[in-house]
Amino acid sequence: MTPEPATGDSSIGILQRWKREDSLKRFSLGLRGVALFFSLISFLLMASNNHGDWENFDNYQEYSYLLAVSIFTSLYTGCQVYRQVHELSTGNNIFRPTMAAVVDFVGDQGIAYLLISSASTAIPLTDRMREGGDTVFTDSASATITMSFFSFIFLALSAIISGYKLSSHT
Amino acid sequence: MTPEPATGDSSIGILQRWKREDSLKRFSLGLRGVALFFSLISFLLMASNNHGDWENFDNYQEYSYLLAVSIFTSLYTGCQVYRQVHELSTGNNIFRPTMAAVVDFVGDQGIAYLLISSASTAIPLTDRMREGGDTVFTDSASATITMSFFSFIFLALSAIISGYKLSSHT
Repeated sequence: MTPEPATGDSSIGILQRWKREDSLKRFSLGLRGVALFFSLISFLLMASNNHGDWENFDNYQEYSYLLAVSIFTSLYTGCQVYRQVHELSTGNNIFRPTMAAVVDFVGDQGIAYLLISSASTAIPLTDRMREGGDTVFTDSASATITMSFFSFIFLALSAIISGYKLSSHT
Repeated sequence: MTPEPATGDSSIGILQRWKREDSLKRFSLGLRGVALFFSLISFLLMASNNHGDWENFDNYQEYSYLLAVSIFTSLYTGCQVYRQVHELSTGNNIFRPTMAAVVDFVGDQGIAYLLISSASTAIPLTDRMREGGDTVFTDSASATITMSFFSFIFLALSAIISGYKLSSHT
């Protein structure tokens, strides 16, 4: 057996840590990008869900809530994706690292709760309407709920990563 | 200036870490205890909410869901409180530390999502019923929703602590 050279062990450790942090950053960027995609679809589907008479989304507080949350999610994930792409391409951080970790975690976790709340709220109403038969209105509503739910799953995963980053900062 | 003695620095560090972990354990036990209290009230309020005719909780899927989640929360927080009290008094761990950290985090976070989902679902139904006037039935339903929401807040805080513990284990 030949003894291994003992040089550069600590720098390899630091490099591995950087690599891991970098891949975590890219992974959370991906998760937020997917959440942005689904929440945008959710927003467009619900905002265009006006078919006259009782088939207007703004007659129902549940659907208005769903729309409001999807707009808010699109704005939040849009800003986060923009910020992360900016940071990855230029290397300049907009926030200080600890501040960024807090904003990330509170934002992801809070919006994940809002998304599951708004999707849950709209389910029984849509269920009851579909008992009388499916229309374009109820189908769009169901699709919106599904998109919000997908968006929730990706933001909930992103919240776990942000929580991990936050606790490794403190 | 007198030089400080350099002995025992590392043991003080370890002691401080133990102290912090111990106080975190007590804090999370407290949070789960409060969540258990609120979810038990929520369960009892909803399970006894039968006043005949249309005023039975099991006529409404929203209220049945709320009841199911409050039972599940009571069982989960009850088991966790029992386990933590057992561990604090005897010093024996039922799970291995990493396993326990995963179970804690997944449990707290999952049930926090279930609680906010079920509370949100029941709000519009109760709102609509109360437009026709308040009765004992709608008042109990509102109280149940509030208790579930309190339970959610404490479990969401407990999930943050569990997440912190999990990431300090890995």
